[in-house]
Parts: sequence; structure tokens; C-alpha cells
Amino acid sequence: MGFEYLTNVALEKAREEYLAKLIENGFGPISERIAVQNSCGRVTAEAVYAHICAPHYAASAMDGIAVNAKDTFNATETTPITLTADKFVVLDTGDPIPEGCDAVIMVEDIVRNQDATVTIHAAAAPWQHIRQIGEDICAGEMILPSHMEVSPSAIGAMIAGGVLEINVIKKPVIGIIPTGDEIIAPCTDPRPGDILEFNSSIFSAMVRQWGAEAQVYPIVPDKYDMIKESVEKAVSECDMVILNAGSSAGREDFSAKVIREVGEVLYHGIAMKPGKPAILGYKGSKPVLGVPGYPVSGIIVIEQLLKPLVESWLKNADHKSQHAVATLTRPVVSGLKYEEFVRVRMGYVGERLMASPLSRGSGVVSSFMKADGMLVVPQGVEGYEAGEEVNIRLLCPEEKLRETVVVIGSHDPLLDELADMMHLENSAVYMSSSHVGSMGGIMALRRGEAHAAPCHLLDTETGEYNLSFIKKYFPKGGVRLIRCVGRQQGLMVAKGNPLNITKFADIAKDGVRYVNRQKGSGTRILTDYLCKQEGLDNKSIYGYEREELTHTSVAAQIVSGSADAGMGIYSAAKLYDLDFVPICIEEYDLIIPDHAWNTPQVQQMIETLKSDKFKEKILSMGGYTVEAPGEIIELG
Amino acid sequence: MGFEYLTNVALEKAREEYLAKLIENGFGPISERIAVQNSCGRVTAEAVYAHICAPHYAASAMDGIAVNAKDTFNATETTPITLTADKFVVLDTGDPIPEGCDAVIMVEDIVRNQDATVTIHAAAAPWQHIRQIGEDICAGEMILPSHMEVSPSAIGAMIAGGVLEINVIKKPVIGIIPTGDEIIAPCTDPRPGDILEFNSSIFSAMVRQWGAEAQVYPIVPDKYDMIKESVEKAVSECDMVILNAGSSAGREDFSAKVIREVGEVLYHGIAMKPGKPAILGYKGSKPVLGVPGYPVSGIIVIEQLLKPLVESWLKNADHKSQHAVATLTRPVVSGLKYEEFVRVRMGYVGERLMASPLSRGSGVVSSFMKADGMLVVPQGVEGYEAGEEVNIRLLCPEEKLRETVVVIGSHDPLLDELADMMHLENSAVYMSSSHVGSMGGIMALRRGEAHAAPCHLLDTETGEYNLSFIKKYFPKGGVRLIRCVGRQQGLMVAKGNPLNITKFADIAKDGVRYVNRQKGSGTRILTDYLCKQEGLDNKSIYGYEREELTHTSVAAQIVSGSADAGMGIYSAAKLYDLDFVPICIEEYDLIIPDHAWNTPQVQQMIETLKSDKFKEKILSMGGYTVEAPGEIIELG
Repeated sequence: MGFEYLTNVALEKAREEYLAKLIENGFGPISERIAVQNSCGRVTAEAVYAHICAPHYAASAMDGIAVNAKDTFNATETTPITLTADKFVVLDTGDPIPEGCDAVIMVEDIVRNQDATVTIHAAAAPWQHIRQIGEDICAGEMILPSHMEVSPSAIGAMIAGGVLEINVIKKPVIGIIPTGDEIIAPCTDPRPGDILEFNSSIFSAMVRQWGAEAQVYPIVPDKYDMIKESVEKAVSECDMVILNAGSSAGREDFSAKVIREVGEVLYHGIAMKPGKPAILGYKGSKPVLGVPGYPVSGIIVIEQLLKPLVESWLKNADHKSQHAVATLTRPVVSGLKYEEFVRVRMGYVGERLMASPLSRGSGVVSSFMKADGMLVVPQGVEGYEAGEEVNIRLLCPEEKLRETVVVIGSHDPLLDELADMMHLENSAVYMSSSHVGSMGGIMALRRGEAHAAPCHLLDTETGEYNLSFIKKYFPKGGVRLIRCVGRQQGLMVAKGNPLNITKFADIAKDGVRYVNRQKGSGTRILTDYLCKQEGLDNKSIYGYEREELTHTSVAAQIVSGSADAGMGIYSAAKLYDLDFVPICIEEYDLIIPDHAWNTPQVQQMIETLKSDKFKEKILSMGGYTVEAPGEIIELG
Repeated sequence: MGFEYLTNVALEKAREEYLAKLIENGFGPISERIAVQNSCGRVTAEAVYAHICAPHYAASAMDGIAVNAKDTFNATETTPITLTADKFVVLDTGDPIPEGCDAVIMVEDIVRNQDATVTIHAAAAPWQHIRQIGEDICAGEMILPSHMEVSPSAIGAMIAGGVLEINVIKKPVIGIIPTGDEIIAPCTDPRPGDILEFNSSIFSAMVRQWGAEAQVYPIVPDKYDMIKESVEKAVSECDMVILNAGSSAGREDFSAKVIREVGEVLYHGIAMKPGKPAILGYKGSKPVLGVPGYPVSGIIVIEQLLKPLVESWLKNADHKSQHAVATLTRPVVSGLKYEEFVRVRMGYVGERLMASPLSRGSGVVSSFMKADGMLVVPQGVEGYEAGEEVNIRLLCPEEKLRETVVVIGSHDPLLDELADMMHLENSAVYMSSSHVGSMGGIMALRRGEAHAAPCHLLDTETGEYNLSFIKKYFPKGGVRLIRCVGRQQGLMVAKGNPLNITKFADIAKDGVRYVNRQKGSGTRILTDYLCKQEGLDNKSIYGYEREELTHTSVAAQIVSGSADAGMGIYSAAKLYDLDFVPICIEEYDLIIPDHAWNTPQVQQMIETLKSDKFKEKILSMGGYTVEAPGEIIELG
């Protein structure tokens, strides 16, 4: 296939022209008639008018007697009137007012006589104590205008007004076509080279959240005719179509060609990142959107380019996104040529809302899941400095960001367990943890960006953990050191230890491929220290420059056979069923600044740390010693 | 039935004790296993861990060749190395790294030779251009903690991590039992005395919005044994039960007795209004809530007392309500003995958010539909003054309140049509109209509470409409008068005009039952003026004190036969198929303050007023003359 030239049209321009072109071609909602009972959350296609009045009859508002007010006009306290049985009707609240009557006298205000007559001591005003016809709704009145979302009480008002069916806007059906030779249906044991098809599940969930329906078509291999056939089928069956993957200008790019043959292409190539190779195609009034294969690119493309179409169709302008101003914890560098979407993790530390950019890899779907907000760097802007205040679109409720304990520092799987237990104890509390190593955590605390920094830093002079670093980096105090756990550090090696690694120095043996942790992590500092102690030259260790960010990712490399040894904690080795060569036990503690100490989320974390449940869980994971987690360590 | 003594326990206390008692009895979520694809919006029952790494194999991040890095270590710009075909493998982006290889060299950096060898000019670092196993997710890693709502990207992350099914919290099933002899299924032609059963439709929609499921049982007549049987069935089939109606301490009160026999009652009678007769019952861990029959009471009771149970079950604390501070346009008087829930209509006028209390009738479900917010008057507080700033829970997005044109004044059905057309033109614009009569609208404008006041005020000295009132009430200017329509005013009388009413004075004839409009309305001022002109004594007109708030409600009284004549506009008579005795044509205009003139919502309203569509619609309604709607009238 030839390389196709991509345009670089500005996103806003492309979005507007796409919608305008589609509307010109007749794009827009279809209505359908449904039972009012099922209409909650749907959007009215046209105004709804009451058929009957509510109440539909004049009803007594009291228990008492119905009378003709005229018959009572002369009654006073001193000249009571007695009504014979033919002049009144006994009735209860809600009963209809009988013919000829036009007032109700409360049961408290009448005297019943032996001879079935009643005596009254005051005149009744016409229509007193009567619930008038139409008090709630009058026949012919507009109950709901066009293009309004139906609420539960509107359902009640419509039924009260005798409306049992209404015309609502039909949910648009979005056809989703996954393509690619290497793509397979989700499974638990994919072979190397297989790519699990989960984009259609993500996209389906997204469009359902917007109020549309999703129809997923079978995976189509990279065969031009088969893709074309599938697109034609989807266009005929659906209101909008997503053609997933194959939209980059690479060697198997059929998407643009197919869409051009089936319909037309407005733009191929948008000045956005990720998502540049998006294709804005259509057949008549039906959009056919070519979406890149990488999940993160796909999510952003359909949110930026399909969501406005769905919103236009559903005529529902209510769902606006919330924004907040936050301080960037790290710089964001962007290209001038495109608008860039950067996912960020957020949390309030004191009154400052902090935003940490997450991995920008298009394949890293978990980063999207972790994102609390989206920073948009406009086209023509090179990026932002750390510490700069930026406007961020929130992907979660703002309150959540106030209830999140922001943990930045060394990685340990126990943090996830701690987060889980905290949230189980108190569903209003969340943890957001970023793994930047022990030193990274200390630096984040110094900049006021976190509530807690887990660390395990060995002072190579004193053999003590953490204390001397606190003295050095927080010379004026202002932080507390909280005991967490003791951790067994050692070398993770393949099951059965085939290379017979028995001591630290063995990582320099010929034929041993090492996998390291990133600089600034406590484990890396320990490893560097051990190398020095053993007199090993880093350059003599194969793979010393290969860096992973967590214990589990080191373990994953070893279990896959792509590395033979890596320094890490016992629990990671156990999780991956690896052999383990113990080296030392280290102290893994939490540094917490004084200003964060009394926040509910930090107090909940400390309480959970101190709980028996936490100790049990940690001991069951193996490789930890638990003394008195949650205790404040004297800084001496 | 005897009268049962009701408690008056504080709402907060009752709510807390109810949940505590239920939890003590074992109330709480059940989990169910579902496909990850269907889990969007559901809440995890337990933490979800990855089964496999994503990517699950080391993949090339580039098009190029895979090599063993060692074989390239000596290559430099000046001393290139040539690799024979057995030392490299050609591969594309995404392809798995072959056994024995540990680096990728980009296609741009190699020279292909004729003999199928390649030459390279730089050493490859181990693991360069390789997407490592677990870059996104590591096997064993926690993907989602317990009790978290599943997002679309989390679905992607779970499938990528080899997780195809998860345990989520089962949606609680809420059984809803409507009771009452007079209650009938929704229909369009109820007989007098029938009450349409729509509470179950409202409640179903509400609980579904909260994430629960609704199961509605057939209507049960007021027979003790049948109600008991239905409650027992619902308790055995559902997780929570709503027993609707019959919860007041009146003559047909079976609810409390039934719940006491089936289970237990914690409280009967809560210090809240509306909703006082609520019954907090339970059988074991299952709540059985007795809910009053009036729809507004029912809505508030289930929101205040059932929603917290559903939220506790679903462990989802995310859905917090938004609040805003608003200025009350009218006083709110409340009782000291209870916490009162007052629905308010809201809108921003300039930077002030105004809140107007709506009808507090428990039967007026349409007022709930119109409510934008809920004012809670705490127990022990007597109420608030007009002009006081109060904290209000929003029932709609705050932006909507900024996009709403607040119209206060005289009623005309054309306002609803205007609102509908405006919103159709621009789905971001809404109208909120309150019918308080022409003078009421002028007063609201003077207090800065509205964007527009429709009025038709006859100056009985000059015979001119509106102008002299503007001069009198806005002596310093600051408002514009906008031409709207001419309206045919006259007497609405029953079809066929059985009482032979042919001129205004006939309303004082013997046997004619009149229905009037409220004081301060333009129509009332006109009527009073006509009486004076004709020399009629109000007291000689039967029903002159009977006041309705709109033209349509006057028409509704006449069509129902409960009145014989009422002053009103032709379009209302036409809507109700009444006969009409024309009296005069009046000018119905809009007063708009200068500060509101340039707001987008007012400009949209003027644009719609000027449109041909509006004129067509108005003329089709009948009884209007349309000259130049939207035009500014010289104040002279």
C-alpha cells in the first residue's frame, strides 16, 4: 500500500466542519414513541401537552360534608342553620364533590343531630375546602417542552395529565468495527503477537454513557474487501459507525480507502495528539469515523469527534464537563503542531489542587483508568512548566479529589492493599499513589505535592534507614516518620534458579541478564550500594541500564525469560512464583507532613495501618515483618 | 380503625438509627459475577487483580530488525558491523521479539546489502525499541480496588490484564407496592373519584437513577389481608420494599399494622414536611418503608430515607449533591416542629441566583418537575424572609441556571410555546416562567428578580396599555417595553352558551356561577374595571372570590361544569372547546430591564419572538393579533 498524505487540520475546525457537513446531509435525530413509564432520562422529541386535568375532578380536601354554599349563607355563631339530609352529602378527603354542591364543611365544624340533620354555625364560602380541577395540571397545558430530559417527577406529571406515551429522540446506534489480523477476542491466555480486542468494549461503554446504543461487529482481518463489506453493513444498520484500527498511514492502511469508496472523507489527519491519524468520513448523513488502533488514541478521538455528534443528535446540552485550576507537579512538553491531550492524576494537598501528568503512551490504557483529569495543551503552545497553574477538565467528581490521600514515592504492592482496605472502611476515602521512587517522594513532599511519601532509604554511613534523609531534606522539621513494615529485599531469579545465583555478586556473572530499577528508587540506591560494597563495576553487569519502575514489572521481565535476575522484594517474587535469594531486610516507612496529618484521609490511612486486618493481609503476602505499623518514629 | 399515635422523631436521627438497625440485622450488598464488558457503571465487590501482563509479550516498538545487542557492541560510525542473516530477524511494530534477541534497530538505521546481510553503524543498547512485558499492567497487580465504579477505560485495562469476569455489587431490587381502593392504573379517561397510580412510575425511575432495580407489584385494595400478603411476597422477593399510601394515621391506615405483623417498626412519624407519616419498618435485614400516598410526600420520603440505604448498599459515595447560595424572592414560613422541604424554581439574574418557592401542595407533582432546587428549613427554624440568602440543594446542573431566562408576570400559553421554540433553536437556553399576574411581574422586576415581565395593564384613565405603568413603577427608566401580541379577551362560557351570556354584565345574572382570576393579574384589573364601568357590585356576582391563577385553569372549571363563566383569552377557550363572548383586545407585552437585555438567553428570546415560526404558531392558536413582536416600543 502506498503512504497516504495526512492533513493536519485544527481539531476545533475539523469538528465544526464535520458536524456542519453531516447536518447539511440530513444528520439528526429520529423520534420513537415509547411508554411514559420507560422515558426517564430520555429526551423529548416534541413538546408534551396534558390530555386531561389533574385532578380531573373537583375533590374534597377534607373529611366533612359537601353543601351548596348558598344554603349556608345565613349561618352565624348566633343564628345557626340546620341542614336536612337532602341538603348535604358526607364525604372523605379525595371524594368527588357531588352534583349541586360547591363547598365542603369540615367534620370539626358541624354538629350531627339525632334526626340525621346537621347544624352549622358559619356560612361556607363557595369552593372552600375543594381541590379544584386542574390545580396541578390543566388539560392542554404544556407539560414538557421539546428536547428536554425526562425526570422521574415529569413521568408522574405526564401520567397525571393523561399522557401514557410520548415521542422521544431515538438513541443513536453506533456501529463499532474492530479490524486487524493480529486482533483476537478477549481471552486469558493470548499467544505472543496476539493483541486482545478490548477497544470495542471501551467504546461501547463510552457511547452508552453518552446515551447512545452500541452495536459491535465481528473482528475483520486486514482484507480490503472484507473491511469494505463490514463498513457497508454497519452503515446500513446503524446511525454512526466507528472503524477501529488501520487508520494510520502505515502499510496496512485500508480504512481511508474503504471509507472513500463507501462514502466520502472530509479529513484524514487531525492536529491532535494522540489521535492524529483519525479519519472524518461519512456516507450521506451517517458519520463513519476512522479511529486509530491504540486504545488511548481511540478513546480521545471518539470523545473529541464522536461525542459532539451524539450530543447534537440527543439535543441535550446539559452534560457539561467540570473544570478546575490545578498546579502541575511536572513539566509538560508538547509539540507546536498539534493540540495535545495529557491525562493527569489529581488530588488536593491542603487547598492546592495538584495535577501529575501520567504516562502519555497511546497503548497504556491503565493510565486512562487512573486519570482524574485531562489537560489540553492547545495547538501552538509548547507546554507548561512544573508549578504552573493550568485549567483541567475533570474526569471525576471534584469532591473525590478532596477525599484522596496523595501518596508519592517508593512502590510496594502493599500500597494497593492499603488503598483497598481504607476505601472498604470508608467509601468516601480514596488513595492515589504514584511510583517515583523514595527520593522522588521526598522531593514531592518538599514541594508540597503529597500527603505521604513511602520510602526505604539506606544511610550507607550509619546503616540506618530513612532518619538521616529526613534530617537532611527537612532540616526545619514539619514532617513525621510513620512506621510501616520491614521488607525482605533480595534477588528475584527464574523458578528453579537455573543460573545458580546464590549471592549478590552473581549478577555480574557471564550470561546473567540483569534488570534494574530506576535511579532514585530505594531499591536502586541499595543495589548501587551493594555493588560498591562488593567491588562490582556497573558496566560489567549486563542490563544494568535496563530500568523498570516497580517490583512487579522487574518480576514480569524475569518470568517472561527476558531477564535472569533483578533486585526486588519477596512479595513480588512470590506473586510471580519466582525463586528468591534474600539479601537484607529494610525499613519501609511513610513520611507525612504535619499539614496533612489531621486530614480525614490521612487519619483513615493511619487507622487502617494500625488495624489487625492490615497486619494479617501483609503477613499473608509474605516477605514482610510487621512490628507496629502506624506508630510515629522518634526523629531523635 | 383506631387512630395511631405518630412519633415526631428528627429526620437525621431516624435516618441514622434506621441504617444502624438494618446493618445490625445484616443489611448489606450481595455480589454477583458478570462479564467485564457489561460492568460499566457497576461497583466492584472486591479488588480486581490482573491475571496476565499487558503487553503479555515483549513487542517491537518500531519497524526494523531484532538483534542480540551483544552482537552489535563494537559497531560505530567509523567501524560498522555487518550482520549475517542468522543474526537478525526483520519485524514490524507490534511483532513479538524472537528468542535470543533483546534489541530492535529501526529500519532507518540499517543498510540492507545485496547478500541479505545488513550493516549497522551504531551499537544497540539492550532492550532498545522494545515494548516491555507489563509496560501497561503487570500480572498480579491490583487493577481496581473494592467498591469502585467501573469506568470504560477500566474495562479495557481489565481485559488487557486477562480479566473477563468480575464480582460486582448486585443492584438492590426495590419492591414497590401501590395500595388504595380508589387507585387505578394509568389511563386517559379516569372517572371522578379515581386516582391515577403514577407514584410507582416515579419511584421506579428514581431508584433506577440511583443504580437500583425496581419491581412494581399490582395495586392492592385497602384490605388488610391482601396488603399483608403482598408485603410478605415483596419482602421474600426483593431487597427493600416500599409500601405506598395508607401511611397516614387516618381511617384506612393498614400500613403500620401490616409492617408490625410482618416485621417490626422502628418509627412511625418523622419530623419532616412533607412526609410526616412515613413508617420506618423492616423485616430482619430488609427495610420496609411505609410511604405517604401524595406524590410529593412520597418523593421526599424515599429520597430522604430510602436513598441513603441504596447508597450504603452500593458503597458508592461519589454522587454528592451540589449546593448553591440563592436569594429568596418570597418569604418561606415553616413550622418549628419539623424539617421542611420546599421546592424552588431558580435562575441567575445578573450575578444573583434567585430562588422562588413553588407550590407546597403535596399533591402537586408538576411543581416537583418544575423545581430546580430544594430548600431545607431545619427543625426549629421558623422560616426565611424574602431577600434572605439561603443554601439550596440543586436538582439541575448549575450551568442551566445561568442559561435560563427568568420570566415572571402575566400568564399566557404562548409563553410555553415561546420557551419551546427558544430551546429548539438553541438547546443551551431555557425559560422558567412564573405566573403571578402583571403587577406581580412589575414588582419582581423592581426587586431585580427577573429577566422579563409579561404584562397587559390597562390604564383606565387613558385607555392605553402598559406605558403609564412603566412610567409609574420605573420613574428612572432602566427598562424597555417589547411588543408581543394583541390578545382577544372575553367571557369563556360552556359550549352552546346554555345560560345565554352575551355581554359582560350577564355575569351578575341570577344562576350564573362566575370564576375569577387572582388580584393583581391584568385580567382581574380588566374585570374590576369592567364591573365599575357597568356599575356592577362585586358582591352581586356569585363566585367573584373564587380565584384561579391562569386562563387555562379558569377554562378547566367551566368545562367541568363547576362554573358558568370566567374572563379569559380566546386561545384558552378554544383549547377547551368552550364558547367565547369577545369583550376587548388588549396589548400583551414584555418589560425587560436594561441589565438583562444583552444576555444570550434574552437575545435568543427576542430573536425567536421576531421569527416567522413564532408568528405562524401564535396565529394558529387563535385569538391573537400579531403586528411586530420583538419590536421595542417607544416609551415616549
